Amino acid sequence: MATNKELKEIVDELFFDDMIDLIEEMPANIVKKILMHTREEERNLINQFLRYPPDSAGSIMTIEYVDLKKAMTVKDALSHIRKIGLKKETVYTCYVTDKNRKLEGIVSLRKLVISDESDVIEDIMDQDVIYVYTHDDQEAVAAVFKRYGFLALPVVDKEDRLTGIITVDDIMAVIDQEATEDFQKMAAMAPTEEKYLDADIFTLAKHRITWLVFLMLSATFTEGIIRKFEGFLETVVVLAAFIPMLMDTGGNSGSQSSTLIIRGLALGEIGLKDAGKVVWKEFRISLVVGIALAAVNFTRIYFFSGVGLAVALTVSMTLVVVIIISKVAGGILPILAKRVNLDPAVMAGPLITTIVDALCLMVYFSVAAWLLNI
Amino acid sequence: MATNKELKEIVDELFFDDMIDLIEEMPANIVKKILMHTREEERNLINQFLRYPPDSAGSIMTIEYVDLKKAMTVKDALSHIRKIGLKKETVYTCYVTDKNRKLEGIVSLRKLVISDESDVIEDIMDQDVIYVYTHDDQEAVAAVFKRYGFLALPVVDKEDRLTGIITVDDIMAVIDQEATEDFQKMAAMAPTEEKYLDADIFTLAKHRITWLVFLMLSATFTEGIIRKFEGFLETVVVLAAFIPMLMDTGGNSGSQSSTLIIRGLALGEIGLKDAGKVVWKEFRISLVVGIALAAVNFTRIYFFSGVGLAVALTVSMTLVVVIIISKVAGGILPILAKRVNLDPAVMAGPLITTIVDALCLMVYFSVAAWLLNI
Repeated sequence: MATNKELKEIVDELFFDDMIDLIEEMPANIVKKILMHTREEERNLINQFLRYPPDSAGSIMTIEYVDLKKAMTVKDALSHIRKIGLKKETVYTCYVTDKNRKLEGIVSLRKLVISDESDVIEDIMDQDVIYVYTHDDQEAVAAVFKRYGFLALPVVDKEDRLTGIITVDDIMAVIDQEATEDFQKMAAMAPTEEKYLDADIFTLAKHRITWLVFLMLSATFTEGIIRKFEGFLETVVVLAAFIPMLMDTGGNSGSQSSTLIIRGLALGEIGLKDAGKVVWKEFRISLVVGIALAAVNFTRIYFFSGVGLAVALTVSMTLVVVIIISKVAGGILPILAKRVNLDPAVMAGPLITTIVDALCLMVYFSVAAWLLNI
Repeated sequence: MATNKELKEIVDELFFDDMIDLIEEMPANIVKKILMHTREEERNLINQFLRYPPDSAGSIMTIEYVDLKKAMTVKDALSHIRKIGLKKETVYTCYVTDKNRKLEGIVSLRKLVISDESDVIEDIMDQDVIYVYTHDDQEAVAAVFKRYGFLALPVVDKEDRLTGIITVDDIMAVIDQEATEDFQKMAAMAPTEEKYLDADIFTLAKHRITWLVFLMLSATFTEGIIRKFEGFLETVVVLAAFIPMLMDTGGNSGSQSSTLIIRGLALGEIGLKDAGKVVWKEFRISLVVGIALAAVNFTRIYFFSGVGLAVALTVSMTLVVVIIISKVAGGILPILAKRVNLDPAVMAGPLITTIVDALCLMVYFSVAAWLLNI
C-alpha cells in the first residue's frame, strides 16, 4: 500500500489530464486520500473534472495551457512562457482571456516568434477562435480536429469562459476508441473501453450474451417459417441443402452494405439526406452482384450437383432476390436508425442477417411453390 | 479547362504534401502539364514522391520543415525561422542536419524560445531522435505517433538522410483510413479509399463480388453435409427448422470473438505470443455464454414450441458445442493469420461463419443420430 506521501508525489508528477484519468480508475478510498492531500484550489478543479460526463470534451481536456492578456506585448508573452512554459503540456497555442476568463483570441507561438517584441497581443491575436463546449461529445471534438488539423482546441463553459484545452495526442486516442466501439457494436457486443487481455471472462461474457440471446430468440421467425413449410421439405428434401448458402450469402451481402454506410455516417461522409441516393445505389449494385452470383451458382448446382433444372432455378432466382433485399436493407436501415437517434452501428451484420434470414426463407419457399408446383 | 498558368498558380498555393495528393489523383496529361511548369528541382522532388509505395511514410510526408545546423546559435535559428517559417507547415520541431543531410538531432520551438539567444544548437538539441524510414508502412508510423504523442516525425532514407517530415494532422487521416480498411475487409470486401457516394456502382460491385463468390462456393460443404443426411431430415423434418438459428448463433459468437482479437491486434494490445491466453479465455467465455444460451433455448423450444425432449436436447447441446467451436476459432484464426503474414482482418465474421457452419451441421447431425436413435 502506498503511503499518503507517496501517493501525493505520484500525483504531483503527472500532467493534469493524465491525473484525472488515473483518479477515475481508482477505488473511492484512494481518491479520497488524494483529495485530502491536494490544495483546495486543485481539489476543486479535480472534482469539477470528475463531474464531466464520460466521453465529453470536459472529461478529456487539460488545464495546462498558456493564458495571455490582450494588453501584453510579445516580449511580455515570451517571458511569461519562459517562466511557466516548461510545465505546460503544450505552449504552441496561447489563449488570450479577459479578467472574467472569457476567451478573446488565440495566438500561436509561431506568431509570437515572428513578431516584433514590441507588438501588442491584441493586434496580432486571431479573434476567429474555434472552440468546443465542456459538454460536447468527444466524437464531435475529434471531427473538429480532423477538419481543421489543429494541434489543440480551447474548451469553454456555458458562459464562454475558458476552462481547458484538448491536445491532439489525446484526440488520436479518441479516434481509436470510437472506432473500437463501432467494431464492437457492429459485432453485436456491448461496447467497452476495457482491454481484452485485462477483462475477466464474466465481464466479457456479459457484454456478449444480451445480443446473442436477442438474436437467438429472433430466430423464432425462421423456425416458424420452416415448420410451416415442412410439407415442402418432406416432398423435396434437397431444398434444405441450400438454405445455409442462401442465408449466408444474404447475410454477407447485407453486412457489406451496412458496414459501408455505418462507416460513412461515422466519418460524416454520408448524411441523412443521402437516404434516397444510397437506396438507389444499393439497388443497382445488388442487381449486378445478384445476377453475377446467380450465374455462378446456377452453373455449379445445375451442372455439377445434379439437382435438376427446377431446383437450380429456384435457388438461383431466390439468390438474386435475397441479395437485392439484403443490400437495400443494409443500406437504408443504418440511416433510418440515425434518423430516430439510434446508433447506426447496431444495424450491422448480425441484425441485418437475422432480418434477411426470415425474408429469404419466405422468398425461397414461394419461388419453390411456383416452380416446383408443390 | 484550366490554362497552364492557372494550374501553376493553384499548385503554387498548396502545401507540398497536399500538392502530391492532388497530383496523384489527376489524369496523366494534366500531371505532365504541371511538371512542365515547375522548376527542375521541384519537378525531381515531385517525381521522387510519386514513386513511394502507396501507404508508405514517403507517400504522406512533406518536405516543408525547418532545417538547422549544429553550429547555429539560438538567435541564428530564430531569425532563420522568422525568414522561412511562415511558409512551413510546422515549425514547432526543427531538424538539425549535417552537410550530407544526415539527421543529427531535433530541437523544439519551445526549447528555442526558453533558451538564451547565445546558446548553440548542438548543446540544446535532442540527439535521441525517433524517426521512420521512407518505406515504412503508414500504419507503423501512426503507431509511433500514438505511442509518443508527437506533433511531427522525421522521415529518413536508407542512408539516414532527412527526406521529409510527417505531421500529426495527416496521421489522423491515416488512423481513420486504416480503421475503414479493416471495417471493409471484415465485412468481406476489397478495401478502397474511394468514398461511397463518389464511387460508381460497378467499382462497388467489383469490390464485393470476389468474396461473396468465394464464400458462396464454400457453402458446397454445408450443402454436401445436409444432402448426406437427407435421410435424417426426411425422418425428423423438424430438425431443419433449427438450422438457421444454430448457424446464425454460431456465426454471431464467432464474429464477436474474432472482432475483439482483430481489433486488439490492430491496436497492438494483443500479440502473437498471446495465442494461448486467447484460446483459454475464449474457451471459458464460450462455456459461460453457451450454457446460458442453451438454457434459454431449451426453455423456449421445449415448453413453447412443442418439439419433444429429444429434439430440444439435441438443439441445445449442439448450441453449446457450436458456441465453443466458433468462439475458439474466432479467437485463434486471426492470430494464426497474422503469424503467417496474412491480414488478420480477413478472419472476421463472414469467413468464420462459413467455417463454423459446416462444423455446426456435423455436430448437429451427430448429436441427433445419438439422441434420436436414427
